[in-house]
Amino acid sequence: MSVLSAHDVVIIGGGACGCTIAYLLAKQGVSVALVDKGEIGREASWASAGMVGPCACQDRDPWFLAATRLSWRMYHELNDELFDVTQRRIGLGGEGELVYVDGEDDLADLDKKVRVQRDAGLEVIVMDGDEAREREPALPDRAIKAACNPAGRFLDARAYTAIIGAAANQLGAVVYEGKPVTGLVRGRDRVMGVRIGTDELHAQTVINSSGAWAGGIDPALTHPVEPMHGQIMSVQGPPCGLRHNVSQATRWGYCTPRADGRVVVGATHELWGFVKRITPAGVEYIGEVARRVLPCLANQTIIDIWSGLRPQTPDALPTVGPDPRAGDGYLWAAGHASSGMTQMPATAAVLCDLVTHQTPRIDISQLAIERYLNNEPVHEHQVFHRFVQI
Amino acid sequence: MSVLSAHDVVIIGGGACGCTIAYLLAKQGVSVALVDKGEIGREASWASAGMVGPCACQDRDPWFLAATRLSWRMYHELNDELFDVTQRRIGLGGEGELVYVDGEDDLADLDKKVRVQRDAGLEVIVMDGDEAREREPALPDRAIKAACNPAGRFLDARAYTAIIGAAANQLGAVVYEGKPVTGLVRGRDRVMGVRIGTDELHAQTVINSSGAWAGGIDPALTHPVEPMHGQIMSVQGPPCGLRHNVSQATRWGYCTPRADGRVVVGATHELWGFVKRITPAGVEYIGEVARRVLPCLANQTIIDIWSGLRPQTPDALPTVGPDPRAGDGYLWAAGHASSGMTQMPATAAVLCDLVTHQTPRIDISQLAIERYLNNEPVHEHQVFHRFVQI
Repeated sequence: MSVLSAHDVVIIGGGACGCTIAYLLAKQGVSVALVDKGEIGREASWASAGMVGPCACQDRDPWFLAATRLSWRMYHELNDELFDVTQRRIGLGGEGELVYVDGEDDLADLDKKVRVQRDAGLEVIVMDGDEAREREPALPDRAIKAACNPAGRFLDARAYTAIIGAAANQLGAVVYEGKPVTGLVRGRDRVMGVRIGTDELHAQTVINSSGAWAGGIDPALTHPVEPMHGQIMSVQGPPCGLRHNVSQATRWGYCTPRADGRVVVGATHELWGFVKRITPAGVEYIGEVARRVLPCLANQTIIDIWSGLRPQTPDALPTVGPDPRAGDGYLWAAGHASSGMTQMPATAAVLCDLVTHQTPRIDISQLAIERYLNNEPVHEHQVFHRFVQI
Repeated sequence: MSVLSAHDVVIIGGGACGCTIAYLLAKQGVSVALVDKGEIGREASWASAGMVGPCACQDRDPWFLAATRLSWRMYHELNDELFDVTQRRIGLGGEGELVYVDGEDDLADLDKKVRVQRDAGLEVIVMDGDEAREREPALPDRAIKAACNPAGRFLDARAYTAIIGAAANQLGAVVYEGKPVTGLVRGRDRVMGVRIGTDELHAQTVINSSGAWAGGIDPALTHPVEPMHGQIMSVQGPPCGLRHNVSQATRWGYCTPRADGRVVVGATHELWGFVKRITPAGVEYIGEVARRVLPCLANQTIIDIWSGLRPQTPDALPTVGPDPRAGDGYLWAAGHASSGMTQMPATAAVLCDLVTHQTPRIDISQLAIERYLNNEPVHEHQVFHRFVQI
C-alpha cells in the first residue's frame, strides 16, 4: 500500500457535481483531490440535456425550488467567472422554458402546471398560440396555448463539466482520472480516505458524488440509487432557430437549444443496469418526441445520438450530508436523478458549507440518507417505472 | 486535354452493378475501365440491406422474376468464385424470406402474396404461427400465419461490391476512383468515351451504371431517375439468432440478418434531392419497424445507422440497353430502384451479352430508355410517393 497524497477533501466522482464541489472548495483554499473511475465528465454529465432554471415540484419541494433557484443564480455567476479563469464558454443561454398544449383537453393540465409555479412565486407568462409562436417561431401551428418561465436556460453540460473541472484544477485541486475507488479507508468511527486498488488517498472528508455508482463505493454504505438509462440526440436546429426549452404539458419529452444552434431532443428512461446503448425502441421514442414537440425538426439532420445513466433515487431527490453508518469524515452528494444540472450547483454549495462547518445555506433535512435507513419499502417516485421498456 | 487510356469498355459508376459488369467483362478478356466519382461502392451499394432471392412482382414482371432468379443463381456461383479469387466472403446466407401476419384482417393480403409467387412458379411454404416460430424463433408470439420463400438470401452488399470490384481489378479492369465523369466524348453518331475534367477515357462502349446520378452524366441523355433516400440501421441480433429476411404482409419495413449475427432494419423512402442524412422522423420509423416486425430487437444495441440514395425510376425498373439519342457505343445499366442487389447481377450479365454482341439472355424490351422518350407523363410506381416525409 502507498499513500498517494493527503488532502482536506477527497471527492469521489468527477461529474458536474464533483467538479463543482472541487471548484468551490478550491476557491476557498481547501486542499481537494477529485477522483474519477474514468475521464472527468463522461457519464451522466456527458449525457445531460443541460436544461436549467428555477422550478417548483410539489413532490420534491421545498429543496427542489430552493436548489433550482440558487443553481440558476450560480450558473450566471459561474458563466462569467469560469470564462475569466479558463477563457472557455459553458454555453449558457436561452429565453425561457416554454410548455405548450395543442388540444382543448390538455388546457387543464397546463393551467395546473402554471398554478404550481406561480404559487411558488415563480414568474410564468401565459400566451395563446399566436403569441407563443411570436415568442418562439419554431412552435407548431397546432399549439393553442403556452406557458413560459422566462428564467429557463440551457447550457452545455459537457462543456460546463470540463471547464469547471479544469478551473478547479487550475485553482489547485488535484484530479485523478481512470482511478476507480475500490473502498473507503476507515478509522475508528470515521472515514479517513479512499482506496484505489492498493493505493490510498487520505482526507479529512470524503465526498461521494459518484452518481449512479454512489451505492457501490462501500458495501456498508448502501444507497438505493439506480442507473436510469436515457437516450438522447442532437439535431441541426430549425432555420428560424430555437430560443426556448420546449415541451408539451401532457406528454413526455423535450427539445432544448444549444448555443451553436443545435437542438437536443430527449429522452428515454430505462432501468436495465449499468449498460449504455442506443436501441430501436429508444430512437423510435426520441424521434417521435422531436416530430411531436417541434415538427420542424422531423427531417433535420441528426448530429449525434448518445446515452447516459442518471442516478435515480426512489424519491428523485439527491442524498446530501453525513451518514450515521460512516461516522465523521463522510458526506453524500449523489442521486440527482433526471434533474442533475438543474439543482447540482446548490448541492455543491451546501457541501462547501458542510465542509467548512457553516450552516447549509439551504435546509437539507429532506435529503438525509436516514430516509432510506428504516428498512421500510421506499416510496417510489412517479418517474421510476415510466418508459421502462424491458 | 490528355487521353488517360483507351479501353473496349468504360463503365461509369463503381457501385455493385458497375463492379459486377467490370468483373464479368474482365473475366471474358474484355479491356475495361471502371470510373467512380468517389470511392468504389460507397453510395446505394453501401446502404443496401442486401436481401436477394427469386421474386415475382406483377408490376415489374416478366423482367423482375427472370432477373431475380438469374441473380440468385449468379450469387451462389460468385460466392465461391469470388472467394477463390480474393479469399474474401460476400456474406451470402439465410434460410429464406419469411412474411407473416398478426391479425385475421391481414390473412387475405398474405394469401394474395402467396398466390402471386406460386403462380410465377416459385416455392412458398405456408405455416401457422407455431410452425413459423419453429422455423424462425425470433418471430413474435402474435404471428398467426406466415409464408416462406426458402430461396430468400441475404448478403453483405458492402463486402460484395468491394470484393467483386477487387476481383475485377485483379483480372485486369482498371479502376479510377475519385474521378467524376463530367461528360461524354461524342463522335459522329456515336459515343467514344468519357470526359473527366480535362482528361478523356476512350472506349468502344460506355456503360452508364451510375445509379441515382445516371441522368446527369450528359445533358442530352436525360433519364427520369431520382435519388430515393433510405435510412437504415444495423442492430445486435437476438440471442436466438435470425435466419430469415422477415417482414409483415401488410406493413412496410423488414429485418434481415448478416452473416456475423447483426440484423439490418430498414428503411425509409424520402425524395429530397441528393442529400444523405439521418433524421428524427427516419429513426422513429426504422425504430418502429424493428419493434413491430421483431419485438425482440426493440432493446438491442444499435450498431450503426446510415443512409443512401436509391436510383428510383418511375416504374421501379432499371433502364438497360442502348439509347437512340446517343447512337452507338453507349449502354444504360441504371435505375434498379429499391431492388438493386436482387436483380443487378442479371443486368450485368445482360450487359456482357450486349457488349459481346450476344442476344441478351433475358428479354430487355421492358427496360428500354424509349419508354421515357415519348414526352408523355410517366406512370409512377406505387412506391414513389410513399413515406416521402417532406
